[in-house]
Amino acid sequence: MTRPSGRMNNQMRELSIISHVNKHAEGSCLVKCGDTHVLCTASVEMKVPAWMKGMHSGWITAEYGMLPRANAQRIDREAIKGKQDGRTHEIQRLIGRSLRAVVDLHQMQGMTIKLDCDVLQADGGTRTASITGAWVALRQAINKLLAEKKLERDPMLGQVAAISCGVVQNNPVLDLDYVEDSNAGTDANFVMNDKGQLLEVQGTAEGAPFTADELMTLVKMASDIMPIIMKKQLEALK
Amino acid sequence: MTRPSGRMNNQMRELSIISHVNKHAEGSCLVKCGDTHVLCTASVEMKVPAWMKGMHSGWITAEYGMLPRANAQRIDREAIKGKQDGRTHEIQRLIGRSLRAVVDLHQMQGMTIKLDCDVLQADGGTRTASITGAWVALRQAINKLLAEKKLERDPMLGQVAAISCGVVQNNPVLDLDYVEDSNAGTDANFVMNDKGQLLEVQGTAEGAPFTADELMTLVKMASDIMPIIMKKQLEALK
Amino acid sequence: MTRPSGRMNNQMRELSIISHVNKHAEGSCLVKCGDTHVLCTASVEMKVPAWMKGMHSGWITAEYGMLPRANAQRIDREAIKGKQDGRTHEIQRLIGRSLRAVVDLHQMQGMTIKLDCDVLQADGGTRTASITGAWVALRQAINKLLAEKKLERDPMLGQVAAISCGVVQNNPVLDLDYVEDSNAGTDANFVMNDKGQLLEVQGTAEGAPFTADELMTLVKMASDIMPIIMKKQLEALK
Amino acid sequence: MTRPSGRMNNQMRELSIISHVNKHAEGSCLVKCGDTHVLCTASVEMKVPAWMKGMHSGWITAEYGMLPRANAQRIDREAIKGKQDGRTHEIQRLIGRSLRAVVDLHQMQGMTIKLDCDVLQADGGTRTASITGAWVALRQAINKLLAEKKLERDPMLGQVAAISCGVVQNNPVLDLDYVEDSNAGTDANFVMNDKGQLLEVQGTAEGAPFTADELMTLVKMASDIMPIIMKKQLEALK
Amino acid sequence: MTRPSGRMNNQMRELSIISHVNKHAEGSCLVKCGDTHVLCTASVEMKVPAWMKGMHSGWITAEYGMLPRANAQRIDREAIKGKQDGRTHEIQRLIGRSLRAVVDLHQMQGMTIKLDCDVLQADGGTRTASITGAWVALRQAINKLLAEKKLERDPMLGQVAAISCGVVQNNPVLDLDYVEDSNAGTDANFVMNDKGQLLEVQGTAEGAPFTADELMTLVKMASDIMPIIMKKQLEALK
Amino acid sequence: MTRPSGRMNNQMRELSIISHVNKHAEGSCLVKCGDTHVLCTASVEMKVPAWMKGMHSGWITAEYGMLPRANAQRIDREAIKGKQDGRTHEIQRLIGRSLRAVVDLHQMQGMTIKLDCDVLQADGGTRTASITGAWVALRQAINKLLAEKKLERDPMLGQVAAISCGVVQNNPVLDLDYVEDSNAGTDANFVMNDKGQLLEVQGTAEGAPFTADELMTLVKMASDIMPIIMKKQLEALK
Repeated sequence: MTRPSGRMNNQMRELSIISHVNKHAEGSCLVKCGDTHVLCTASVEMKVPAWMKGMHSGWITAEYGMLPRANAQRIDREAIKGKQDGRTHEIQRLIGRSLRAVVDLHQMQGMTIKLDCDVLQADGGTRTASITGAWVALRQAINKLLAEKKLERDPMLGQVAAISCGVVQNNPVLDLDYVEDSNAGTDANFVMNDKGQLLEVQGTAEGAPFTADELMTLVKMASDIMPIIMKKQLEALK
Repeated sequence: MTRPSGRMNNQMRELSIISHVNKHAEGSCLVKCGDTHVLCTASVEMKVPAWMKGMHSGWITAEYGMLPRANAQRIDREAIKGKQDGRTHEIQRLIGRSLRAVVDLHQMQGMTIKLDCDVLQADGGTRTASITGAWVALRQAINKLLAEKKLERDPMLGQVAAISCGVVQNNPVLDLDYVEDSNAGTDANFVMNDKGQLLEVQGTAEGAPFTADELMTLVKMASDIMPIIMKKQLEALK
Repeated sequence: MTRPSGRMNNQMRELSIISHVNKHAEGSCLVKCGDTHVLCTASVEMKVPAWMKGMHSGWITAEYGMLPRANAQRIDREAIKGKQDGRTHEIQRLIGRSLRAVVDLHQMQGMTIKLDCDVLQADGGTRTASITGAWVALRQAINKLLAEKKLERDPMLGQVAAISCGVVQNNPVLDLDYVEDSNAGTDANFVMNDKGQLLEVQGTAEGAPFTADELMTLVKMASDIMPIIMKKQLEALK
Repeated sequence: MTRPSGRMNNQMRELSIISHVNKHAEGSCLVKCGDTHVLCTASVEMKVPAWMKGMHSGWITAEYGMLPRANAQRIDREAIKGKQDGRTHEIQRLIGRSLRAVVDLHQMQGMTIKLDCDVLQADGGTRTASITGAWVALRQAINKLLAEKKLERDPMLGQVAAISCGVVQNNPVLDLDYVEDSNAGTDANFVMNDKGQLLEVQGTAEGAPFTADELMTLVKMASDIMPIIMKKQLEALK
Repeated sequence: MTRPSGRMNNQMRELSIISHVNKHAEGSCLVKCGDTHVLCTASVEMKVPAWMKGMHSGWITAEYGMLPRANAQRIDREAIKGKQDGRTHEIQRLIGRSLRAVVDLHQMQGMTIKLDCDVLQADGGTRTASITGAWVALRQAINKLLAEKKLERDPMLGQVAAISCGVVQNNPVLDLDYVEDSNAGTDANFVMNDKGQLLEVQGTAEGAPFTADELMTLVKMASDIMPIIMKKQLEALK
Repeated sequence: MTRPSGRMNNQMRELSIISHVNKHAEGSCLVKCGDTHVLCTASVEMKVPAWMKGMHSGWITAEYGMLPRANAQRIDREAIKGKQDGRTHEIQRLIGRSLRAVVDLHQMQGMTIKLDCDVLQADGGTRTASITGAWVALRQAINKLLAEKKLERDPMLGQVAAISCGVVQNNPVLDLDYVEDSNAGTDANFVMNDKGQLLEVQGTAEGAPFTADELMTLVKMASDIMPIIMKKQLEALK
């Protein structure tokens, strides 16, 4: 099988992370994973959500959006529909959980950091690109808080990045673009830390059920690419 | 380690599936998995969603709800808040995908079957109990359509059921109740078919990251219990 | 005239009230009035609504919902429509008013009790069944507060129950089921206390206007059945 | 007992109905019942609601609103709160039902008449004033349709009007203003036709339960005043 | 060119301002500009919006609404649509800005005055009539606050009124009614103070672009009529 | 007076318009006016809004959004607040009107072009930058439709661009950035065509009323810069 893009099965798309693309935000980057472009910003607020009062902790949360023409077909603006749809909820919950998994929230009492991931252009893999970029923006924001002595100790416990894998025509492939995603039998997203451990696994049989062995193959493929993605993250921080 | 319930690590809670609990619905059952009680109904409509017109297919979708006092703390009614929250969206999308994975939608042209899963009482594992129960209600509804000759051929390709597993204090355990779920390092839901294949995997490191090996242990645990759950489903259909 | 159910004109459907159907709620029961099944729970909160601050009083309120397939035709979930419809508002306001009429709210300062009445299956008379069941759940919750010494004195001033009557083909009949309700010329709901007094009367000429005399006949019919309903409530509390 | 207004117990407030206050509407009047002022308009549309297609009938419906400063305290605009509250729903459903009770909808196939009742200033009894005024606006609109030959036969079966009564300090009184309404033990609204029959009865024990005898006294009081109100309606139509 | 109404190009419609039309409001008037009728009320609240806390200032804001049958075609009630539309937002923002421009908000610390402008009947020019009437209601409310010593000094810096002008078939005309407005090439609204200065200019080429010279002609026309409108405002206050 | 940016009073910020920044859209550009960055896309749909059926015309409309961290302070996402606020409505209505003023909609029957203007970073003047960029995206989309023969004749009647001017400390200045905008006595936006005519004027006295003469000075300043902006637009199209 040849992939539509001509890539090898375990080959990721060109990944670039451009830092400091927003003059207001405490952290920001533009992640480009092939034709998927996501703008990530980190915003610090010196307060916590109401339900967290008295819990001696800080909070990290994420929001996800798509510009109406990020896709081949224009989609209606959620602000006009009056609510975020199910997919948006699912993705922003995933981003938030992934980042909280590498931060000691008790080290950032009284603070909230909001990560906004807005997709300017989509071509598959927007949620994993969002996680990868959001970590960079979060790292910048925390560095700023440390430099300004608003944080005494670094609450960041590690690095987090994400990638999708899938089974297309019985072949396990890495980093699906939109065309492949639409034709995948199985599609899985992996969020990992810099120790090679898993933080989130989401696998879905969109067309064909998968076995435990196939799941392992995909985990392996994702694990192998992680050091390369994480190196890009660190370069963006320099 | 002793589990709070005294169960063995690979022991599921008492599971019962009571059929025909609703005199109006084309299919219905009350699933009780320990203290988690979910009422599942299947409703047949002789039309398809607008976006599906002209696609020579039928549709299966699910909705999920919780009565306000299903939990220890009363939660506000989503009808009053004016929208379903992110968790609800995530769960009902999962139920719908899981059921569609075992149905040939092209065999049920022009029909929609809606599965409503309403949690009367919650004690962990409501989404997996919903999937297990929804399949029974769906099977009943399809049987009725076959009996009434509204369907020529059985569109059902197999059986589907679900269970949660987790890592609690480094021990892999099956079928977490609420207390365990709150303390789990990792929590995973597995949706499988009757061939032992995976349809959905959702694993989350709520407290502690997990390795590929740990994921495999959980997959194994879930696979082993599936035949027992599926037997209960078939008994409920008699 | 023979009633569709074969009941006599002044005969109520089989009524059963099953207590303690929810392990979390401070009070709960499942009311079955024929094929109308309503799950009622009472939830205690140690605070009052914002508008009640400084009024040295407590509050009792009710919410009403219908599962999507409670009826012959599935109805859309109010959580998805984004609001409760007019009928729901009307009913939950009625339930709340009826219960407040038999409680001295000043005896329960700083507390709110919320009664949730959720219709699992409907066959006419859901609002009156809700009131009858909600009183049982409320009584249980207040008993619990008294036992826990959170209430010093019993704020409950009496018992409350409700029943519908109607005029079908010029015959006054008791406790209309759905088929009768759809064909009734006049439909009326009566909420009464244990002294035989009226708390609420709602009479509507759905097909045929009614006279003062006919209204009196219906009041009499409702009054006569009340002791029997109230006995069932007390039995459920044992 | 002397009433705050000095009126006798069975004395209504000054009632005036000014017709043709809106140059666009097919029917319109301004009802003034003491300091309660309601603007009623009837709007004809040559179509029926979607759910009524194929039913060979027309439709009559009502909407009710209050200007933000109709009351002593300004209330938030429902357009800003994003929804109509429970009381509004209850009232507009009552107005619609009352008017439909005196119209043969099958005589107005394919037409909808919408009655808008907007309270410019409130002092108790806004819902009954709305019904009284809405009938006048409806009668005008139907007259116009008859004159224009859009209706062949008069679908109006009779006249409808409404009044409130209540028990204040154990005295039955007619047409409560806001001060009395706030202090009433029982408050009841009666909608009647020109044959002296009841179309709607809504009685609520706001402070003190009431007996069947008291209910009869209030029905009598309302019946006695109806001819006077209906005469005003007819005069407004001249 | 003859105007549809027979008015001269620089002739305003008959303008009347009737004060004290609402017994509850701190200020109120009914503005009639031809067949455009707007009810304006001023409501005083002894608090400021949350975002204004600690700013040692008061606040003035406006809301605008249209009764459903204010126009030739009935429009849906915004309370039912669940939100105010873009035009409503635009107009109420304009009214609020215009009034704030002639008040020293620091002289009314801790107070909010809300101006409600509700269109009972529309025939073009509702936003300018609203501004003209809202100023009268605001002046009355402030006079009341001064009389009650709730304000020490008069925060009102001047008078404000508004008028529309337009270019119809290449003729500049004053105070367009609905028919003219629909056919205007250019439509402009001018808000001015009693020194002849501009507070707001909104000019739109609805059919034909306009030159700077034409804009000047319209400004002149509006300026010339202002003293007459402002005299009416003062007369209404007597 | 020296401007905060050091610019001369009639000096615009650096303006750049980068075309084809979105691979899916029929037209797109990124407008940078100093630190104000707006992404504009044009999306063609081969249908018209429901209200336009049978009118033998096409339609052009615009939507406007701001990413949450476009500003110094993060603002809540309108998709979460559940509605677009008043300012958003006002701006997108302005953009749509401005573009429709230079297109013969009857030449594009059965088509809708939607212009999405999303502010990635804000520093004053986002609405005028949006208009300037939206015209470029619209021109590209129309060129594409002409090239594909979906349009027979060019419906575009001219070029449109916009700029803000203001009076800051009594000095008329061009193209206000955020700091100046916050301190302006008067703020005005001008939308003009390539014949030097006005399409829209919006002038607001935010702090100090303005005279007709001052308005003329601002109109002049805006007129003078237009050819330069329009040249940039044409260069972007090459």
